[in-house]
Amino acid sequence: MYDLSIQRVKKWLSDNKAKKVLIQAPDGIKAYLENFIESLEKEVEVFISGSRAWGGCDIALKEAKQLGIKHIIHIGHHGPVRVKIPENVQVFFVPAFAKISVENALENNLNKLGDCSPIGLLASLQHVNQLKSVKKKLENLGYSVVIGHGNLPFDGQIIGCDVSAAVNIARKVSCFLVIAGGIFHGFGVYIRTGKKTLILDPYRKKIVDIQKTMEKFYAKHLYNLAKALEAKKFGVLVSTKPGQYSINLARKIAQKIKKHGKKAYIIVTDEIEPETLQNFTFIDAYVNTACPRLNFDNEDNFKKPIIGAKEIDYVLENRLADHKIIDTLHIL
Amino acid sequence: MYDLSIQRVKKWLSDNKAKKVLIQAPDGIKAYLENFIESLEKEVEVFISGSRAWGGCDIALKEAKQLGIKHIIHIGHHGPVRVKIPENVQVFFVPAFAKISVENALENNLNKLGDCSPIGLLASLQHVNQLKSVKKKLENLGYSVVIGHGNLPFDGQIIGCDVSAAVNIARKVSCFLVIAGGIFHGFGVYIRTGKKTLILDPYRKKIVDIQKTMEKFYAKHLYNLAKALEAKKFGVLVSTKPGQYSINLARKIAQKIKKHGKKAYIIVTDEIEPETLQNFTFIDAYVNTACPRLNFDNEDNFKKPIIGAKEIDYVLENRLADHKIIDTLHIL
Repeated sequence: MYDLSIQRVKKWLSDNKAKKVLIQAPDGIKAYLENFIESLEKEVEVFISGSRAWGGCDIALKEAKQLGIKHIIHIGHHGPVRVKIPENVQVFFVPAFAKISVENALENNLNKLGDCSPIGLLASLQHVNQLKSVKKKLENLGYSVVIGHGNLPFDGQIIGCDVSAAVNIARKVSCFLVIAGGIFHGFGVYIRTGKKTLILDPYRKKIVDIQKTMEKFYAKHLYNLAKALEAKKFGVLVSTKPGQYSINLARKIAQKIKKHGKKAYIIVTDEIEPETLQNFTFIDAYVNTACPRLNFDNEDNFKKPIIGAKEIDYVLENRLADHKIIDTLHIL
Repeated sequence: MYDLSIQRVKKWLSDNKAKKVLIQAPDGIKAYLENFIESLEKEVEVFISGSRAWGGCDIALKEAKQLGIKHIIHIGHHGPVRVKIPENVQVFFVPAFAKISVENALENNLNKLGDCSPIGLLASLQHVNQLKSVKKKLENLGYSVVIGHGNLPFDGQIIGCDVSAAVNIARKVSCFLVIAGGIFHGFGVYIRTGKKTLILDPYRKKIVDIQKTMEKFYAKHLYNLAKALEAKKFGVLVSTKPGQYSINLARKIAQKIKKHGKKAYIIVTDEIEPETLQNFTFIDAYVNTACPRLNFDNEDNFKKPIIGAKEIDYVLENRLADHKIIDTLHIL
């Protein structure tokens, strides 16, 4: 299902004389690690992280440190995101390109593209390696296609908190076509650019315009923001994940809340779990300083309003009328 | 609901010139922290751990370190369990005695005690402060009562992985009466001593003989052990929590499994979450080296057999007939 670059990984381990290695992968890729591990075990002692690995922000540095491991293989993301990797640790990033044809999914759904041209072509990391061939295919069909480049290493690549590859070409295109499983990556593009965004999902073999789903999510989010207006006690959430840790932002937000005569509690943890937070029954609403996607995509799980770090001003100053969808995500 | 020793905490913070403090509490006590925090906030900057805090094994040392905090208030447990607290950190343990009368619950359920005498009287930390008065009450009613003392600081105190206060008096008593909310603490006593064990639950105001529930749990556990006989691929679970971290035990177990021609994967994480582990679809069964209670009380959550570190031998050597209930928990 995924190309785990086993030969490159082996060479890297051997070049670096690694004896022990910690492997981490997102939940969706964990199922496919069996042969990869077996192959590595011939040469090094393998330890597997049982944690989530949400992104390049979520590198298992603390687990590696505790295990005395100096070599991490981080699967599914392109590189560190807002993380400075300590000098005594090395991390090899395996993109894990999906071995699933994007062209097939495209061919069966061409009618969904309509008259969109030029198309801004984007992809999650798992599919960026197919962007060029998809571009050619679309051009042969008469579409004009632009692949942007942003802060990330691959042409056309976007992640949950960086869609600069979309922003950089937004003016030049009439819609975006985002190759990715699920709606997560497309959401970011739509929120940041406001442009018509189609998702080409190679797993479900579908092209979907996300606008209606987005509108539902945003309506629900506005409803939660309105509920947050009534909140008197805010939990300000901080994750200790290396690329999500924003304690100073949290302290500033807590001070701001207190200045408005409300209560603020700074809550710190690694994995922000709605189930555990629910035990703080006295808290009315959360302000999120960690992964920006927590307070939009996963809002339902929290049972209480969870708002972004940029949104607390709208709530405290009671001016939701000024709120725009782009304000939901404090990093994008 | 709980006595959070606010005056003692304040004095400790002041004596130690603390400027910032990290508060952690088990999920069941998180709801009652509001006034406690408000009171402390007048004197120090307060940060709250959003993590679980399962026991004295689970002290938020890593969170404190990342926050640059040298003072932790750990609520609900008596002290460190298998944890060496670093010299540059101080932890104040608040027992959080429950403000709920045990005697009331006892009075309404005296018929459940039957002819059990002498009674071995035990309690979870939240109720140890009432043991003496309960003892007197029972003695006035004609019962003979023994309160044991084990490795833990309070007379009669037991925790999930230490029931030495029960073991030390097991020969002298005809049954145990365990004052605790829920069946968790009573389970440990029964498993370790094999004696009739009654739970006096002050929240539900009931006395319950746990034998039938225990038998059901044990039958289910044996069924899981039998399923583990078929397993070819084992995940050996390691928690990075300071008092649960058993990497060397895990490595030994993994070697043993491999010697028997089966596969072993060492999986390392802080909070062992069944939901995340389920993504390792290729694994047939787990061996637990972390909190011993994971592989008995919470077995159902794992969807796959999870066996204790002591039980792997029975499985690999195919001799479940020799298995005794006490083998389920590798620390007790």
